[in-house]
Parts: sequence; structure tokens; C-alpha cells
Amino acid sequence: MDEVFAVIMAGGSGTRFWPLSRSAWPKQFLALADAGSGSAGESLLQQTVRRLQGVVAPDHVLVVTSHRHAQATREQLPELPPGNVLGEPEGRNTAPCIAWAAAHVAARAPKGVMAVLPADPHIADPVAYRAVLGRAIAAAREGGLVTIGVTPTRPETGYGYIEVGEALGAGGVKRVKRFVEKPDLYRAQQFVADGNFLWNSGMFFFRADIVLGELERQLPDLHEFARACQKQLAQGGGADEELVHSRYATLTSISIDHGVMEKAQDLRVVPGTFGWYDIGSWTTAYELAHKDAEKNAVQGEASLVDSQGCYVRGEAGKLIALIGVRDMVVVDTEDALLIMPRERAQDVRRVVEALKAKKATKYL
Amino acid sequence: MDEVFAVIMAGGSGTRFWPLSRSAWPKQFLALADAGSGSAGESLLQQTVRRLQGVVAPDHVLVVTSHRHAQATREQLPELPPGNVLGEPEGRNTAPCIAWAAAHVAARAPKGVMAVLPADPHIADPVAYRAVLGRAIAAAREGGLVTIGVTPTRPETGYGYIEVGEALGAGGVKRVKRFVEKPDLYRAQQFVADGNFLWNSGMFFFRADIVLGELERQLPDLHEFARACQKQLAQGGGADEELVHSRYATLTSISIDHGVMEKAQDLRVVPGTFGWYDIGSWTTAYELAHKDAEKNAVQGEASLVDSQGCYVRGEAGKLIALIGVRDMVVVDTEDALLIMPRERAQDVRRVVEALKAKKATKYL
Repeated sequence: MDEVFAVIMAGGSGTRFWPLSRSAWPKQFLALADAGSGSAGESLLQQTVRRLQGVVAPDHVLVVTSHRHAQATREQLPELPPGNVLGEPEGRNTAPCIAWAAAHVAARAPKGVMAVLPADPHIADPVAYRAVLGRAIAAAREGGLVTIGVTPTRPETGYGYIEVGEALGAGGVKRVKRFVEKPDLYRAQQFVADGNFLWNSGMFFFRADIVLGELERQLPDLHEFARACQKQLAQGGGADEELVHSRYATLTSISIDHGVMEKAQDLRVVPGTFGWYDIGSWTTAYELAHKDAEKNAVQGEASLVDSQGCYVRGEAGKLIALIGVRDMVVVDTEDALLIMPRERAQDVRRVVEALKAKKATKYL
Repeated sequence: MDEVFAVIMAGGSGTRFWPLSRSAWPKQFLALADAGSGSAGESLLQQTVRRLQGVVAPDHVLVVTSHRHAQATREQLPELPPGNVLGEPEGRNTAPCIAWAAAHVAARAPKGVMAVLPADPHIADPVAYRAVLGRAIAAAREGGLVTIGVTPTRPETGYGYIEVGEALGAGGVKRVKRFVEKPDLYRAQQFVADGNFLWNSGMFFFRADIVLGELERQLPDLHEFARACQKQLAQGGGADEELVHSRYATLTSISIDHGVMEKAQDLRVVPGTFGWYDIGSWTTAYELAHKDAEKNAVQGEASLVDSQGCYVRGEAGKLIALIGVRDMVVVDTEDALLIMPRERAQDVRRVVEALKAKKATKYL
């Protein structure tokens, strides 16, 4: 456990959960999933950290987020040393974020294993998850770039897929044949029927020395940056601050998927089933929420008359009354209210874009 | 003009306009109609008083309302002498309210003409209205109980009707054959086709001595109460306070329609057309409101995407965003929010009843 580090990527902007998520208070800070027992009120980020108990020690958990959210992140995670929260001067996609985190890990343990995890999935079965996590960490310790692939339960078009190849020894580890972008429904159905496709969970596992080697080969500016940080960090905590401030904005902005994984030479996948949900929209939040006999999911004070299938979320001291309303999302905050049919959840960005165009920043 | 008084009945509880109207702030205080030019922001009550300009002098305008709303009424109508606002200890329907007002009128002018007017209709054409008002006042001066009947423009099932009889001299005045309660659609269609039916506007005109005579014949306790008040009032303003306080709750609680008009001996009607709307629900408020190209009526800050036919009413500093919403009413206040299809406006009372049952008084 000593040389295992978690790197939690918490850089989300949270457009899809407007008006609850704002630029100042993104998705990972929200308690969007109330399905897990005992997790009521915890934010997605807090759940993600808590889920690592027994696998990664708190002082080995790093969180990379926007510099604007670093303070709030430290407040949500008081068990982490403050220096473990890395505030990016600006978002440059996931590859620079992982390069920076790799420098921090390498400074403490050059061959330390990094479990790179998104801050915001919901995991219904944390016990099964931890077992898969253990297998992925063990696989990464041996080398290569490892990912977790989730056994698909439906032809989901909102996720990317991984086609698996031959088995690699024990522990269910398989070679990755290829990554597939989000498919259309027809292809998604084929993938599920085929049986050789897994959902790409966006969780990656590798040793610091190995990912830095891949960066040197594929994205040399990130490698050079990471090694420079590592050198500074050898001098003591926070010593890379100036370097990050001056260099971060110039780094190649690319995802770890496109920048590293797709052209990596040794890609492995650990299949798993642990009730994994990417909470990508209010629709998913509704699906995960506790529902009453009329299929309404209500948080806050509400009076529902002849209404079914609604997701209603208000704040304390405010009553939300619905009469004859079906399958709608109603999210009410102090200064903004969103109403839409559940199936229109993908269009929340249109409101956010309209607000940006109007420069109505106070609502963003 | 000297001996013409207006008696504005402002006793509404405003259930149908929840959550904007509350027990503490009923319908007549709301600016529900923005259709009239120059009336933006004025409450229905203020519009009703302003509409009388040139017909009834402000110090001849009496308003009868709940004692709980007397102060707010005085604040909304600073042009009225404070003593002209009569605060009922409790609501006893319209007959006691008119009896009390008749006492006030009779104390100042025993044969003064009373124009008894509801506080909350919308009148699109105030010029035409004032002409009809003048004819009704002139008719009442000659005697009898006079009402204004509105020429129907559609088979409305939400209004009562008046069947007219023979013409009585000049000025278009006709005898009332009978009052008809709200009909079903089939009968309403017959009434419109027949041509001898008018909408009952709920506006009544009579001399104080004549209505007191009718009360003596039909509702003697109200007559006795009114005469006692009149006697007290002869001693000076506010002198009937104690009497009202001790007697009002014991008076026969009945409407002027059932208690007096239906069995009155000399009933006359003045027909008129002046764009009269009983704003009975959010549906009417939508119909009267200014609408954009997508048929949305919006008051407050809103961002509407793919939405049509909606009535949206919010408060300053709050953004209401709709995506893909059709024909809905959205009324948002600081502590309560109502969402329903426009056609469900009659069911607002069900929410109010549910709140009463739950004793959620802070939302009532």
C-alpha cells in the first residue's frame, strides 16, 4: 500500500448540472447520488475518496482541480494534507494534469503506482469495486498501462468502449485491442452482443516511471515539465509552484486517452462489475435517486398532485408544487430555476451557452 | 356626481392565484393584468379605482375588505380618506358587506346611488366601461336594482348569465327576467345563440334607500344592523366600530345575488361591451398577458429554449430557464414555486387544500 497513490481528476466545469452546479461550484462538489447507503449528503468527490479506504492511505491521495476550486476541495477533504490538492492555473485537459501528478508521485516514490480516477462516477457496489481496484493496482505494478473496463449491462451510447484481446495470466487481466469512441445505438447493441467489449471507465493505473516513459515518447513537452517539477519537489513541498505558474498554460492540451493511451505499446484492462454510473446529466441523477410510488424523486419540500416521473430538487424553506406534471426535471436554487422534460437533459448546455452569450455571468 | 358612491368589494382570499396570492396578500393586490396600456404594475384594486376617474370622486369611493387587509388597502389607495376603507371582522359573504356600506352611504346621502363593484375584474376598454357605468348609475337613480350585463362573445361556462326581458325606456335599460347559474357548455352555447342572455358582471347599482328597503323585506337582521350603523355614523367617522365588532359575526352570511337580487321586485340590467374579464385563474392571466412570438408570456428574468405557450412569472434577481416546455404555468416566488399545465389552473386549490391539511401555514 505504501507506494500506491490515487490521483483524482476533479477538473469538471459542471455545465450539465446547471443550475445546481456553477462555475464556482462544479459537479464533483454536489451530492448527486443518494443511492449508496450511508452516503447521503456526501459529494461525489467525498464519496470517491471514501471509497478508497483500505486501498490508498489519505496522505497518498492527490486531487488535481482548478486553482479556483482548490480551497473548496481542501475543505471537503480535511483528511488530506493540504499540499495533496493540486490547483491547475488553467484546464489543459487530462494529459498535463496526469503529468503533473506523476511528478508528485515520482518525487515520493519513483516506481509508485498511480490509480488515476475521475472524481464523479457513482459506484453502487464499493466492495466489489475495491476488489477490482486491487487487481488493477497489482497489474500496474508489473508494468504497462492498465485500465478498468466495466462489463456492459445495456447498449449505452453515452460511453466509450474497449475491445479486449487475449488474457494475460491470472487475475482476469486482458490485453486491450482498441479503444472505441461513443457508438451509435446499432453499434452499441453489437458490442453488447459480441461480449468482447467493455465500457471505458476512464480509470487508469500505471507506475510513475512507466507513464513518464510514455510521455517522453509521445508528449515530450509534458515529460520535460514533469521531470522539472519532480526535481523542484525534491527540495520540499510546494516547491514547484513557480514552475507550474509559468509553464502550465503552454503545455500541450490533450486528453490522456488521445495523447497517450491510444498509441501506448502495452495496454491492459481489468474487467469488473460494480454498479458503475457516469452521472452525466440530470437524467442519470433521476435514475439513481430514490423514487416514490409515483416514480417521483424528490429532494426538498414538495407538494405533488397528479404528477409522475419527475425529478424535483429544491432547497430548504422553499415549497415546490406540481400539478399534473409528468417526466419533468425541476431544479430550483436561490437564484436560478430549471424546468425541462427528463429526456431533454442533454440540452442544459444550451441554456448555459445562452447565458454566456448574454454575459449573464452571475447565473453561471 | 355628488351623491354617487362606489363600493368596491375586496374580500377575496385568492386561492386560485397561489403562490403569488397568499392569505396575507390576496388577488386584488396583485398586478395580474398587463394588457391595459399605462396600467403596468398597478394592482387590480388600483386599476378598479383609477377606472372610476370622472365618474366617482375619490372621497366617495368605499372599499370593503378583511380587517387583515385594511392597512394594505389604504397604502395601495392613498387618494382615499382612510375611513373609506371598511375592514370586516370576518368574511360573511357579500350581503352583509353591502348592508354595511349602505349604512355609510345613507349616513352621508340617504338617497345616494351606490355602484357596487368587484375589486378584481380586468376591463380592456375603460372608456366604453365608463359610458356603461354612467348609464347604470342614471338608471339606478330612478329606482330599482340595476346590474350590468356583458354581451357574451363566447359560450363561457365560468360565468353566470342574465336572461333579459323587455326594454325600459331609453338608455338600453332592460328588465331582468332571471339570473342563471354557471351553465354547462351545451346550455352556454344555447345562451349565446339565443341573444337574450348576458354575462352577470357582478356589478350592482342602487340607491341606498332602495337597497335598505329590500334588505328590510328579505334580510331583516342586515337591515336592522345597517340602520343601527347609520345612526352611529351620524355622530362622526369611525363611530360604528364597536357595533360592527360585536354584531358582524352574527349577521346572515349570504351573497347579495341569492339574498336580495333573486327575489327583488324591480330588477333592471344595462347591457355593455367593454372587454370585461373575470381574472379567475392563471389561465385568464395568461390570456390577458402580452405574449412573444412563441406565445410565451414572461414576467421576470427567463431563458426559454424550445418552449411555447408558457406563462412564466418570476421575481427580480432570479432566472427561470425552460427547455422544451409547452403550455405550462410557472409561478415562482421567494418561498414557493408552482408548475402545472395551463389547463390545470382550476386545480391550484388542491395544492392549497393539501397545504392546509398539512398545516403548512407559512406557504398559505
